[in-house]
Amino acid sequence: MYLETINGPEDVKKLDIGQLEQLAGEMREALLKRLSFHGGHFGPNFGMVEATIALHYVFDSPRDKFVFDVSHQSYCHKMLTGRREAYLEKEHYDDVSGYSDPSESQHDFFNIGHTSTSVSLASGLVKARDLKGDKENVIAIIGDGSLSGGEALEGIDFASELDSNFIILVNDNDMSIAENHGGLYKNLRALRESGGTCECNLFRAMGLDYVYLGEGNEIGKLIELFHRVKDIDHPIVVHINTIKGKGYVPAEKNKEDWHWCMPFDINTGAPAAAFEAEDYADLTCEFLLEKMKRDPMVTTVVAAVPTNIGFTEEKRREAGRQFVDVGIAEEHGIAFCSGIAKNGGKPVFATHSSFMQRTYDQLSQDLCVNRNPATILVNTASVYGMNDITHLGIYDIAMMSNIPNLVYLAPTNSEEYFAMLDWSIEQTEHPVAIRIPCNGVVHSKEIVDTDYSVLNRYQVVQKGSGTAVLALGDFFQLGEEVAAAISQKTGTSPTLINPRYITGLDEELLKRLTEDHAFVVTLEDGILNGGFGEKIARFYGSSNMKVFNYGLKKEFLDRYAVEDVMKDNHLTPDLILQDLGF
Amino acid sequence: MYLETINGPEDVKKLDIGQLEQLAGEMREALLKRLSFHGGHFGPNFGMVEATIALHYVFDSPRDKFVFDVSHQSYCHKMLTGRREAYLEKEHYDDVSGYSDPSESQHDFFNIGHTSTSVSLASGLVKARDLKGDKENVIAIIGDGSLSGGEALEGIDFASELDSNFIILVNDNDMSIAENHGGLYKNLRALRESGGTCECNLFRAMGLDYVYLGEGNEIGKLIELFHRVKDIDHPIVVHINTIKGKGYVPAEKNKEDWHWCMPFDINTGAPAAAFEAEDYADLTCEFLLEKMKRDPMVTTVVAAVPTNIGFTEEKRREAGRQFVDVGIAEEHGIAFCSGIAKNGGKPVFATHSSFMQRTYDQLSQDLCVNRNPATILVNTASVYGMNDITHLGIYDIAMMSNIPNLVYLAPTNSEEYFAMLDWSIEQTEHPVAIRIPCNGVVHSKEIVDTDYSVLNRYQVVQKGSGTAVLALGDFFQLGEEVAAAISQKTGTSPTLINPRYITGLDEELLKRLTEDHAFVVTLEDGILNGGFGEKIARFYGSSNMKVFNYGLKKEFLDRYAVEDVMKDNHLTPDLILQDLGF
Repeated sequence: MYLETINGPEDVKKLDIGQLEQLAGEMREALLKRLSFHGGHFGPNFGMVEATIALHYVFDSPRDKFVFDVSHQSYCHKMLTGRREAYLEKEHYDDVSGYSDPSESQHDFFNIGHTSTSVSLASGLVKARDLKGDKENVIAIIGDGSLSGGEALEGIDFASELDSNFIILVNDNDMSIAENHGGLYKNLRALRESGGTCECNLFRAMGLDYVYLGEGNEIGKLIELFHRVKDIDHPIVVHINTIKGKGYVPAEKNKEDWHWCMPFDINTGAPAAAFEAEDYADLTCEFLLEKMKRDPMVTTVVAAVPTNIGFTEEKRREAGRQFVDVGIAEEHGIAFCSGIAKNGGKPVFATHSSFMQRTYDQLSQDLCVNRNPATILVNTASVYGMNDITHLGIYDIAMMSNIPNLVYLAPTNSEEYFAMLDWSIEQTEHPVAIRIPCNGVVHSKEIVDTDYSVLNRYQVVQKGSGTAVLALGDFFQLGEEVAAAISQKTGTSPTLINPRYITGLDEELLKRLTEDHAFVVTLEDGILNGGFGEKIARFYGSSNMKVFNYGLKKEFLDRYAVEDVMKDNHLTPDLILQDLGF
Repeated sequence: MYLETINGPEDVKKLDIGQLEQLAGEMREALLKRLSFHGGHFGPNFGMVEATIALHYVFDSPRDKFVFDVSHQSYCHKMLTGRREAYLEKEHYDDVSGYSDPSESQHDFFNIGHTSTSVSLASGLVKARDLKGDKENVIAIIGDGSLSGGEALEGIDFASELDSNFIILVNDNDMSIAENHGGLYKNLRALRESGGTCECNLFRAMGLDYVYLGEGNEIGKLIELFHRVKDIDHPIVVHINTIKGKGYVPAEKNKEDWHWCMPFDINTGAPAAAFEAEDYADLTCEFLLEKMKRDPMVTTVVAAVPTNIGFTEEKRREAGRQFVDVGIAEEHGIAFCSGIAKNGGKPVFATHSSFMQRTYDQLSQDLCVNRNPATILVNTASVYGMNDITHLGIYDIAMMSNIPNLVYLAPTNSEEYFAMLDWSIEQTEHPVAIRIPCNGVVHSKEIVDTDYSVLNRYQVVQKGSGTAVLALGDFFQLGEEVAAAISQKTGTSPTLINPRYITGLDEELLKRLTEDHAFVVTLEDGILNGGFGEKIARFYGSSNMKVFNYGLKKEFLDRYAVEDVMKDNHLTPDLILQDLGF
């Protein structure tokens, strides 16, 4: 087995083409085993095996610097740079993250997890290299799905202003997470079909030199190509055509489903565990499909992550022209929805909390300055969401809730969520964002309000005295526990409040609380800084009310256990009661 | 005079070509008079006179919908849509804003002031029109400088997915605010030089139909062209070449200086008032030039607004390759700086507070997750900054200070600002942002710290008791006034604190204050929501300290008088003392 002998790129260089091809097979086998057990990004890594081998064969990492876009395709790079054990031995599977990480290896230069960043980051490496007078190669490796992102296009446009070595490897597999969207993909197809020769060329139109290779999974040809561009004295795009999921039949056949996988059975490709539980993705999809059927002006808009709200290929087809995937282009997505709403449409945009970060200015300028009534669904916005440092969903309250004119709602259960969503779609006054709960689908038998147009009216769920617990969104259930514990411990029933509105204060209610409450506890599923609780603390700042804010510390967490983070932040009934002195 | 007869587009349609040409002359005269008296965007409007006339001659606004990018070139549009008095009569000059504004006219669809948004916004109008089954034309009008912005490129890429009427008018004058930057401008030049015929075509590479007109200031040819594309059944780029500043010799000669102007003498073009006072733009430029001369790794990076930190054409030349203008591409700018810092460079990025909004995710992911030591200068970050609804500088504290790992500093005078800047450039531990003061250049004779590496240590400027005033950044001088007023009124000298660090609490100092202080007053030049003061309120939430937070309400202000806003928000010593009960 060659893979076991690879301690670094120098060992890759010792092999001949035949041996490298064998190595590629071994790497795929290791990937398959690990992914079937552990889950992770499948298609992107299977497609890049040969290119990664060839890169390490030709270039001299870490002197030559690779920057992987999204870096969800960097597993093979990790295998070849001293981290093979994490792909060969079960007990080491968790030694590495799913993304590039400088703390793991000197062969990684950035923590990267969002798309479309590699060209800009790498161009900075180029600039500093030139200022120092160094001569190494800088190589950005970007998949075609990432090309539609504004940052990537800005970076590619800028790259031509650099007049020194810079290699932009475009890994074209004709796929984003789902199918690609946007006009540039027609050009990539024309380039593939003409073997890179067609005159109209996006990259040349952006001022860059260009070279093409159709056989992006052939090691020999890749090595030859990379030798040709190594030490080049100007920026060049190297466009290669690879097969996403290459080498595993189910993944080659069904590229979208195999972009990322849960643990599965290698023989059948079937998931190892069945998930029968209700989830908000499917529920949201069903709800929106129903709305769209009844009203042709309702439009669902996503940015390359359609299944996050349940829109599988089949459901997308069912929604027809009322469903739009703008590709990886959140900036465009939000401005597009503002335009739809301005012209009488009822747009619903959905993406991850972490990806909402790509569209702050559009939220502020295009949408909220203009007060257009678009609906935004923010998902995995929670400590219970994704736990990689680059995909955390705990910053959106701080980022979004301080933008004027936005109404940001935090439902506490399924019935309330869909009532809010329904209201938001039908109202015409405000841009509205809704934080989809992330602590499982909780049902309530209470009657929920259907009208949220009188803003910032909190709901008193339980009227008590002494202490008031304001439990926001999916920390409401924690709030119920805290309230119960207070009752039990003190014999006095506290007030329990569902604030519902993240973006404003129910000043009347808050004032009333001062009459028979001495303590206010706030709970929110996000960082405290810039969040909901601090506004409550400011409100009571000059009063006698004692305010205790609970939420998360401002920090970048990485691959955490939820339980640990909750304890660290005193987010348990016991610790909260201790703090209160009960 | 024809202009006086134009009450709306219907009156434009009554004129023949000769009369329209005369109208163009009258419009330029009105623009010249108004701008010489009032200041505003000069070059963009002078270049667009003929195209705007032709648009209104051919299309039927407001049924047909124009969306002007940035909308700083919409003065002519306003003149022709019932707002001519605001351009003809001094007493009406302030009736209209410098940007499109739906509250002014049904011919304006959005408040727009940031670049690169028009294509996305307009494509939303297209989508809703199609869902409704309507048939009007939708026209996005975008200048070449705006094309490099990520949102514009995302929008153009997406536009080709629309299969119905959509006209993207590219007003190519070969200029951004300063000269254009980025590879796509090479393609625009090739298109101009080939009369639109060269095979390699950025817009076609993005999947769009395309037509070109070299004579973008000839009304007859423009009318003919617009007739050709009117009611077209698919998206098309209409590329016209205009002359920025056309019709006024100084503006044609010196396009950068005449992008935007202060009041000036029409005969000479010289500014009406001389500004001899020191300003932070020139001081910053001199400081950075000196640093760059002494250290080849220091690099100044801007995004199309070089003179905001004093980098005129001459100074840019002086800085040579250590100065980079990335064009309108803030996302790329921040990621680029992260890359430079990672590879040992010392990048300093500068832009307006309002434009920082375009790069939230890059601040978070590319820079702060990676903790690379880049320096960011945030200017016009103040109630004293720009006062158009689209250019406000009062949200950056809420937006930036809650991002983990960022050190955001608020200097209170010139000496402190440059000490912080010098420290930031030389340190290698943190991404650092500095909020350039905006209340005039204040000098201090106090010795300022040169080392800010022990984070979150506030400076006690005056030790007193009873009340502590925490006065952040350029509200420090207001804090001095408040402190003096408290002394005078109560006979007890309060404590005055310069917090310096926006991003963290000096917990030791804050704890110490509880010993002999009952009141804490915070002052910050930005919205209170998500800001600095709320963190202080949270810190003291469960203590006996009474906290009073002062800053601005969360709202979108528009063309305000600073004095009114200060009073509304109780930002005067008198009102604050009243609130405190002194």
